[in-house]
Amino acid sequence: MIITLKKTADEKEVQALIEDLESRNLQITKIVGENYDVFGLVGDTASIDERSILANPIVYNVQRVAQPYKLVNRMFHPEDTIVDVNGIKIGGKKIVVMAGPCAVESKEQIERIAGEVLEAGADMLRGGAYKPRTSPYAFQGMMTEGIMALASAREKTGLPVVTELMSADKIDEFIENVDIIQIGARNMQNFDLLKAVGKTDKPVLLKRGLANTIEEWIMAAEYIMSEGNKNVIFCERGIRTFEKYTRNTLDLSVIQIIKERTHLPIVIDPSHATGDWKLVESASLAAIAAGADGLIIEVHDDPTHAFSDGAQSLKPEKFASLINKGRAIAEVVGRTL
Amino acid sequence: MIITLKKTADEKEVQALIEDLESRNLQITKIVGENYDVFGLVGDTASIDERSILANPIVYNVQRVAQPYKLVNRMFHPEDTIVDVNGIKIGGKKIVVMAGPCAVESKEQIERIAGEVLEAGADMLRGGAYKPRTSPYAFQGMMTEGIMALASAREKTGLPVVTELMSADKIDEFIENVDIIQIGARNMQNFDLLKAVGKTDKPVLLKRGLANTIEEWIMAAEYIMSEGNKNVIFCERGIRTFEKYTRNTLDLSVIQIIKERTHLPIVIDPSHATGDWKLVESASLAAIAAGADGLIIEVHDDPTHAFSDGAQSLKPEKFASLINKGRAIAEVVGRTL
Amino acid sequence: MIITLKKTADEKEVQALIEDLESRNLQITKIVGENYDVFGLVGDTASIDERSILANPIVYNVQRVAQPYKLVNRMFHPEDTIVDVNGIKIGGKKIVVMAGPCAVESKEQIERIAGEVLEAGADMLRGGAYKPRTSPYAFQGMMTEGIMALASAREKTGLPVVTELMSADKIDEFIENVDIIQIGARNMQNFDLLKAVGKTDKPVLLKRGLANTIEEWIMAAEYIMSEGNKNVIFCERGIRTFEKYTRNTLDLSVIQIIKERTHLPIVIDPSHATGDWKLVESASLAAIAAGADGLIIEVHDDPTHAFSDGAQSLKPEKFASLINKGRAIAEVVGRTL
Amino acid sequence: MIITLKKTADEKEVQALIEDLESRNLQITKIVGENYDVFGLVGDTASIDERSILANPIVYNVQRVAQPYKLVNRMFHPEDTIVDVNGIKIGGKKIVVMAGPCAVESKEQIERIAGEVLEAGADMLRGGAYKPRTSPYAFQGMMTEGIMALASAREKTGLPVVTELMSADKIDEFIENVDIIQIGARNMQNFDLLKAVGKTDKPVLLKRGLANTIEEWIMAAEYIMSEGNKNVIFCERGIRTFEKYTRNTLDLSVIQIIKERTHLPIVIDPSHATGDWKLVESASLAAIAAGADGLIIEVHDDPTHAFSDGAQSLKPEKFASLINKGRAIAEVVGRTL
Repeated sequence: MIITLKKTADEKEVQALIEDLESRNLQITKIVGENYDVFGLVGDTASIDERSILANPIVYNVQRVAQPYKLVNRMFHPEDTIVDVNGIKIGGKKIVVMAGPCAVESKEQIERIAGEVLEAGADMLRGGAYKPRTSPYAFQGMMTEGIMALASAREKTGLPVVTELMSADKIDEFIENVDIIQIGARNMQNFDLLKAVGKTDKPVLLKRGLANTIEEWIMAAEYIMSEGNKNVIFCERGIRTFEKYTRNTLDLSVIQIIKERTHLPIVIDPSHATGDWKLVESASLAAIAAGADGLIIEVHDDPTHAFSDGAQSLKPEKFASLINKGRAIAEVVGRTL
Repeated sequence: MIITLKKTADEKEVQALIEDLESRNLQITKIVGENYDVFGLVGDTASIDERSILANPIVYNVQRVAQPYKLVNRMFHPEDTIVDVNGIKIGGKKIVVMAGPCAVESKEQIERIAGEVLEAGADMLRGGAYKPRTSPYAFQGMMTEGIMALASAREKTGLPVVTELMSADKIDEFIENVDIIQIGARNMQNFDLLKAVGKTDKPVLLKRGLANTIEEWIMAAEYIMSEGNKNVIFCERGIRTFEKYTRNTLDLSVIQIIKERTHLPIVIDPSHATGDWKLVESASLAAIAAGADGLIIEVHDDPTHAFSDGAQSLKPEKFASLINKGRAIAEVVGRTL
Repeated sequence: MIITLKKTADEKEVQALIEDLESRNLQITKIVGENYDVFGLVGDTASIDERSILANPIVYNVQRVAQPYKLVNRMFHPEDTIVDVNGIKIGGKKIVVMAGPCAVESKEQIERIAGEVLEAGADMLRGGAYKPRTSPYAFQGMMTEGIMALASAREKTGLPVVTELMSADKIDEFIENVDIIQIGARNMQNFDLLKAVGKTDKPVLLKRGLANTIEEWIMAAEYIMSEGNKNVIFCERGIRTFEKYTRNTLDLSVIQIIKERTHLPIVIDPSHATGDWKLVESASLAAIAAGADGLIIEVHDDPTHAFSDGAQSLKPEKFASLINKGRAIAEVVGRTL
Repeated sequence: MIITLKKTADEKEVQALIEDLESRNLQITKIVGENYDVFGLVGDTASIDERSILANPIVYNVQRVAQPYKLVNRMFHPEDTIVDVNGIKIGGKKIVVMAGPCAVESKEQIERIAGEVLEAGADMLRGGAYKPRTSPYAFQGMMTEGIMALASAREKTGLPVVTELMSADKIDEFIENVDIIQIGARNMQNFDLLKAVGKTDKPVLLKRGLANTIEEWIMAAEYIMSEGNKNVIFCERGIRTFEKYTRNTLDLSVIQIIKERTHLPIVIDPSHATGDWKLVESASLAAIAAGADGLIIEVHDDPTHAFSDGAQSLKPEKFASLINKGRAIAEVVGRTL
């Protein structure tokens, strides 16, 4: 930790700060500069709240040197973590494709679309049963009935199921019926929910928040791992920017950053990122070229009548075509799909 | 609702869209333009998912005309709502001041600071018992013990208590011991939590999300009201911008916008907005001049040893001085404080 | 153009607005809604300042239907524009690669690096002679001497040269010595500079502004074309977001959007977008997969001693390796490189 | 300057870095941490490009300690700078009000409105003769004719004139006819234009860029001062955020930050910041309460027919009312208006 001190600080105040820091078992190296002095601190600085050090009027600035994450940090865990979902490995050579409708709309619908995406080449089935909607008057999902419909579609197709958990009080339902628990973008910093899924051993697909930094996202994964669950999968779904021609802005640079800084796999969601089915294919191919471990894509067989997000849903035939092109790109970068 | 159609659409597809819309009991007015045609729709468009209309390849754009909020909307409820908290009225002539430490650190600490802010002129006591922290290794709050300490401080000082609820499973504890339930910025779109507090009749202080629009914030209030709770208070606490010299950017234009579009009161949090105690006074005076119904300010008597956020905490004497200056501004704009 | 009127408007005011609009030769279609009335306007709405219509107290909202760009618009110019630079075609089947150092540091340096990037497979040479720097104390470029050094490197290697013009008063120097004039991100809305390059027939590489929308970027191209210059090439170089682990955030969805809405080619700058040489290769491969017409990449043979931006510069051997991988991706998407 | 080194760095590479730094006359203090080592550098670090140090693979991070601005820095110039404009002092006790239409539309219009704002209490006249417009088809201003109309309005009313310069080639016209040269938001990092006005001694009103940080803004002022012009006035006009209900987001915290870090005055533009005349009064009162040295406000006597920005223009009578309320707030904070 680096503390920058104002030159106007009087000697007594500086001495008081030194004593305070030393009483916390920190070693101080002082560097005298032209306009500022600097304290370099070594020791267990994690226990210090830097914003309280900053409250000291003689302090100009406080900067942390070390990364604030440990369990997720590749520095302390150099090998890739591969998450196993009913035998399907996320983070290995094969790029895993999750596909399905935005929302489960009926048992028939999800079973039908599950069959279609299986045929087109998907490895897993997605579909929302609990839907976080901006408006209380919009369709809120089929809830438990939707979860049971997903379970039934899995039984018929063999596709493992990924779906969003919005509230810790439904967690038993998810543990029993679901293969990957999704934490949605709006709940990325719902710390109690992170702790709750951290106490299970279910794989967790952790979406990046709407306007969160990668560091905040990594810290959300650290929350889950700090409760014992090692099966965390990052999912980039676009961030909010000023752009209005797309729903969000897909940030593909996260792929290499997540791989450099953590040991966990990362999946890309081109559907929410672009919000426009016409952009999903090129975003998917780019994600594969950039090194993604998986894709999660919205597929619907009647998008103009979808209960939600029709604009970003591919029809099954377009999805199948995407898979074929994706395979060729995957091969170039040494992966399979 | 306004649907813009591409000129390249063939007549059959246009006819199919018309029939689809008419089957939903919508009346269509067609406007033929030079480069686009436009359908103006009248009827219950709330039931339509505009992003699914947009999935239709002949559709270029879909725009809503009406505001998506009803219960919160001043158009349908022209009088100001005044929220009564144990006799203290928020949204009336008096500007209400809530003050206290970022976190409850001990029973002694919160009782002591409660006495100090009471003496300086505060109307209510703030203090976090459940703390949403970016890191799982940072202080997470005293939890239930903290709630009981707040209740004890209230007993000694008479100050009503406002504190953050992070998870619906603690709601009974809050109903029993707390006067205003705060929903934090990171939970502004935790829709299940919004529904949970909506089912109570406790006043709710609804903080604006880190990077949320005013419309999304108003819709979060609509969630609470749609469950029956009419006692919603907006709280602006700064939004995330590119600026690094402040923690967040305080958006004071929200005050008049919230008052124009809704009938609910609005409180300003200059402490989180600026993140710097040196900026809190000027931000507070500006908020009063701009028409705020209240302030929520962090006060700590030993900021450099605060468990969190010392950098933005005022010492009691500076807080008292702020109150005095604020009174003079309040008078100019026809309020009291 | 769609004007939404408040229901509270009195009849006389509405009549005055109608007469005002009709006096401008606009045809009005009125749609009576439940909470608002809507005027759909047909005619030459481009002459209307929508923000002045909005000044009318009875108006709730004004929305444009038509796209504000004409010359750049694919709707009126369906065929791809291919920009010819000394025989090299940008926007055709071949993906064009521009490479070189951030800044021209000496005649020897730029000639040496020109040779290195030529050998590695570059089609053109980049290098800044006039440098827009945040600090007046940072290296401002070699200016005219740098332009002459670039011209000399071109003579030795045959590589056409692209470099940034910061001020219209240097334009003759650029017309004479440079093959593509670059407009930098900070000057994207320097309208007088846009008009100046619009009056030439030199190809213009138009970088997207730091925090500009795609529509604003397209309008900047419209400025150039409206003065007569048809040789505009878009260049995405990342936009400012909250992310701190990268310098900017590369937005690859722009590729398909620019191609759908305009007829002009688009080039990607992965170096400025990521700010980190370790991320340049994966960003480049992703850009090719997403359909880019070209890449502009910073290459330096001694990055740790570069006068600027060493952190994002590839060494020549890494650049050569990138080109090889890029070729394989290009082939998959039906291009060459 | 603080350089953080990876623990994986081998000794030879570290030694090479040390020698390189020492050859630049920098003194190094080494701090050995648990996960990283840190070099604290003292000496003339301004000459180092930190992004090139970062290119070294053994370097994890580079952070600057000192502020990058000198001439503008209050640390080296503790007294307030007061800019004198024809005897009117900006930065003193009196809050200075500049008012007038967005654009000069005719000689008659600007003379008439000049008289109206003078009567209402304005100290200076604003009005655009050269207009930076997003579209080349929008009104671009009356140019030289507009400048002469402003000069004529000044002659009739005695009000000094502030107007925007878009291109250095018009600078003589401005030196002769204008009292304050405005640099617009889109040109805040048009460094050649900054240097050009820096070579004059005319007062410069430097608007903050659309999405620029305060540090970048201060550095733009440093550019002007580094050429010799000491008469720089900052002008906050709102920054771009995700919010759609306002045109921009007014950041009033800049007032105290500019005053703490620099010695220059700061003026607030509530018209562009909010984009809505209904919000201008409350924003202006807030700005005064927060400590602004001046206001620049758009006033038009027929906003619905304004050539531009009618939506944010106050009518003269509303402007007069604002001035009266502002006076009362100014008095409370120890200023006059």
